[in-house]
Order: sequence, then C-alpha cells, then structure tokens
Amino acid sequence: MEIITSTSNARVKQLMQLQKKAKTRNEQDVFVVEGIKMFREIPPGRLVQTFVSEHFYQENKSIITNGSPVTVLSDHVFESVSDTRTPQGVLALVRQYHYELEDLLGKGVHPLILALENLQDPGNLGTIFRMAEGAGVTGILLSPGCADIYNPKVIRSTMGSVYRMPFYYAQGRVRKLAAYAARAPRGRVGDKSPYSITDDLRRDILAFREKGVCWHAAHLEGSVPYDEADYRGPCGILIGNESKGLTAETAALADRRVRIPMCGQVESLNAAVAASVLAYEANRQRRNAAGTRMEKLRRQ
Amino acid sequence: MEIITSTSNARVKQLMQLQKKAKTRNEQDVFVVEGIKMFREIPPGRLVQTFVSEHFYQENKSIITNGSPVTVLSDHVFESVSDTRTPQGVLALVRQYHYELEDLLGKGVHPLILALENLQDPGNLGTIFRMAEGAGVTGILLSPGCADIYNPKVIRSTMGSVYRMPFYYAQGRVRKLAAYAARAPRGRVGDKSPYSITDDLRRDILAFREKGVCWHAAHLEGSVPYDEADYRGPCGILIGNESKGLTAETAALADRRVRIPMCGQVESLNAAVAASVLAYEANRQRRNAAGTRMEKLRRQ
Repeated sequence: MEIITSTSNARVKQLMQLQKKAKTRNEQDVFVVEGIKMFREIPPGRLVQTFVSEHFYQENKSIITNGSPVTVLSDHVFESVSDTRTPQGVLALVRQYHYELEDLLGKGVHPLILALENLQDPGNLGTIFRMAEGAGVTGILLSPGCADIYNPKVIRSTMGSVYRMPFYYAQGRVRKLAAYAARAPRGRVGDKSPYSITDDLRRDILAFREKGVCWHAAHLEGSVPYDEADYRGPCGILIGNESKGLTAETAALADRRVRIPMCGQVESLNAAVAASVLAYEANRQRRNAAGTRMEKLRRQ
Repeated sequence: MEIITSTSNARVKQLMQLQKKAKTRNEQDVFVVEGIKMFREIPPGRLVQTFVSEHFYQENKSIITNGSPVTVLSDHVFESVSDTRTPQGVLALVRQYHYELEDLLGKGVHPLILALENLQDPGNLGTIFRMAEGAGVTGILLSPGCADIYNPKVIRSTMGSVYRMPFYYAQGRVRKLAAYAARAPRGRVGDKSPYSITDDLRRDILAFREKGVCWHAAHLEGSVPYDEADYRGPCGILIGNESKGLTAETAALADRRVRIPMCGQVESLNAAVAASVLAYEANRQRRNAAGTRMEKLRRQ
C-alpha cells in the first residue's frame, strides 16, 4: 500500500482545491464529505474516491473495503487536507446531485417547499437542511446568492441530510450575466446589470405557484401570526437573508406574509430559527390533520 | 487625542486577553462587545470603557461622547484586537451580570425557564439567547459545562439579548473540584472525581421544581410529542449537549420527556433548533390561552 507523505503531491493539492473552491468542485462534479458518520451514509453509487489517514487505515481496514479506490495519506498530510480541527481520518469524494425543479414537490404527500433567498451563513444553511428533513420538507429552493451547499462547513452541518433532501439552485444568473457582460460596455456589469441575482428565484417561485403551491413569506411586517396560517395543503415557506430578510420583490410574490411574534426587544430571529419555527408549525398541523383523519376512519 | 499605534501597548495586550480568556474577563468583571448595534444597546451604567479605531473616531465623534473613557487605536491596532473579520471600529468593555437564581422566574408572567446542559457551541448558545428573548423565556439556567456566555462569538450571536435575558451558571463545580483536588492524591482528579460537572445543574433544577416549575426534557425517546404537553403554567425546558443530548441523570429529573417528531432519516436536531421549536410551542400555547381569556372577558 502506497502512502502519500507530501502535501505537494498533485492529488493532495487537488483535494485541497476541492475543499476550498466551489468552481473546482463543480468542474469535477464532486463534493468532499468528512468523518465516519458522513462516510457511512454515502448512498450506493455516489462514492467516487476515499482518502484515509494512515492511522485510520490500520484500525478500520474493514469499513473501507467497499470497492471504491482508497488513497492512504500520512497522518500529517491528512491533517492538512482536513477541514476540521480534530480530523477523524476519513474523507471521501461524492458525486454531486442534479435535481430537477419538480423533484422539490416530493412524492405522495402535499409539497412543503422551503425557498431561501441569499442565505449566506454556511452553518445556517446546513442546519436548515438537517431540520428540514426532520420537519418533512419535500425540497429546498435556493437563490443563486445563497451559500454553496457543497461548502465543507455546510456539508458537515447537514449531518447527512444533503444525501436525502432534494434541492435546486435557481439558475441562470451566471448564464444571463455572462450574456449581458458580452454585450455591455466594460465597467457596466455589476450593480448596473439589468438582471437581479434573485430574478431566477422569483421565476421558480411563480412556477411552483402555478402548480398550486401556496407561499408563506416569513416577514417582520407580516399581517398574521405564523400559527394562524394553514400549511396543510401544498405550500411553501420563504426565508430571507440573515441581516436583510426577504427582498420586497420576493416577499411580494407570497400569498401570505406571516410574522413570528417576538417578545422583549428582539428585532428579528436567526434565519435557521425562523425556518425551524415555521417548518415545525407546518409539521404540527399536518400531524394533527392526519390524526384527525385517522380518528374519523376509526369512528366509521 | 492620544492614539495607540502599537500592539505591544499594555492596554492593547490587556484587551486581547479579555477577548480570549474567560479567566481574565471574570477577574476584571467585564466582557467585550463589538460593533455599533451592540455598542448602542449597552444599558445605562454598564459601560466601563470604549475603544474605537482612528477612522471610526473621526466619523462618529458624536455617538461616543457619552461620558465613559474613550481610547483611540490606530486602524491597524484595532484590527488586531477585533474578533471579527470586518471590524466596525468600535468595541467596549461592559460590566458583567450577576443574577440570582430567582431572577430566572421572571416577573408578572408564569416562568418559562430554559436549562442548558453542557451546550458547547458558542454560536448555538448565542442564538438560543436571542431566540429565548423572542419567545418570552424568563431566564436561562446553564450547567458549568456550557460555553462561556461572555465568549465574543456568543456575545455577537445574542444580538443584544445578553443585556436583557437573565441567566445563571449552576455553580460550585470549580469550588468543589478545587476542594477535592486539595484532598485527593495527585492524578486522581478528573474522570475519577466524585463530583459530576452537572451535579449543580441538577440541584438547581430541583430547586425550581420545588417552586412549582414543571420540567419538560427534550429527549429522543420522549413518551409524548412536544406539542401534546402543556406549557401554559410555570414550566421549564431542558436541552442537552449537541452530540450527546441530556445525561440520563438530568433527564430523569424532568416531569415529562417530550419528543420532537422527525421525518426521514434524521437522528436528532441541532440544539438551537430543538430549543426554538419547544420554546415557540410554549409561546404559541401561551398566546392562544391569553387570546381565549380576552375572548371570555369580551363576552362577559
């Protein structure tokens, strides 16, 4: 068994690039997962390559003999490619997901879609994925301005939900801006671009609305408390940026603006907290409705 | 106006210690807050000293002339003492809070206490303080194994709630372990200590129980879904460590173990998410109860 002992090895350098750069990850259509739990949960057919530390290899030969190529790195080299402070000694390249917009509608239940506009904190994004799977969200729609789901910190915070939660980045920004840049005089691209970075999110929100999804925007000036809205039918929840909230244009597309009541002098809640409160209210209403249906069936 | 231009200045070094070390903060009975929002919200009488960058001083002389001593640091020195990536140019020393256990019971409403056992992620702790103020929690009880509320990252995540939310660290660990260490043979302190680090949390939980607080433990094996419990009376919510949950001994003190239903393959939720779902369920029930009382009054 060959062991890579130098951080200037080409494959090690490549791995470091994959940890750091979304562009490299997208070009190679992979993302990096780290740790035993994330490694064990990799769905069949998605594992591209495994990297282990020398130490880990010696103690866990059995769990990594699953057919994919395995590269052993000296403990020192492993530490330098790891994104964590206390590396567990195993990381893997996993093939990226490519869902269609329709996949967010789920199967067999009423859709419950979470749409995130410019959510930028990686920890928040991962936490939302994990919570969303727990609450029964059927899919997550992200504006192009959101953090990259394949950022190592996001992946870690999902605790494996990234493997199971359908998601879709509203596309077109890159394509449109590139097309505009090609036409526009130098120095005019950017703020002056006619294309807002959330244009595409809005187009997709409207597309779901046409399929019967009723959108609820979490909004500080919402007209109803969030728990007075009805989430039992096909519906979606709009969550905005950590400091700016939803843009007025996106909030305007919602069927309803709902407000989370706040005591004290709190001006707003953390975006992951707001998403959790709303998604679990939807979950609660859906469970109660199912309970009522069961009750009726028993009485018949 | 004298401007400090060297990071080896004694006061600058002292400030760096205050950012990094809980021990130094506790000895001097202060904590450090950063940014304009946190600075503006400092309650009257708590501000000990203000530090500003040269740049900030020139543009904001008016907002910092509030009577406390102001020290101007060169922009370069300010960056080196700041705990943030993009410093806003103002930080301040604020006098620490010293609540009594009874302060967590609140005033004029039924108590809603959050007890945190060994919650270790600073971001989670700050997010919980912010959410708790919003949900109407009356006070937060922390085990000695929790992160330090005065850690700069915690302070930042509270978004100002640290100024307003009564909290209490179950004490005695340091005192007891020190007493034990003095008696015990060398090398036996630590795992072998007869004092669990959460002993004191348990004592305080029981003290509140004697005052009529009904405790609900967030537990993966809870016997009832969280939304079937009643939080309208004096009550408390127990939240455990991020990866281990509540210890069996602490969970055993609860009047009820409640479970947050989870779909998919999610094994647990982020601690701040779990705390938010439970605290906002309590808030929802209390609002509805208040609504019903108002309705009855109107009918009379």
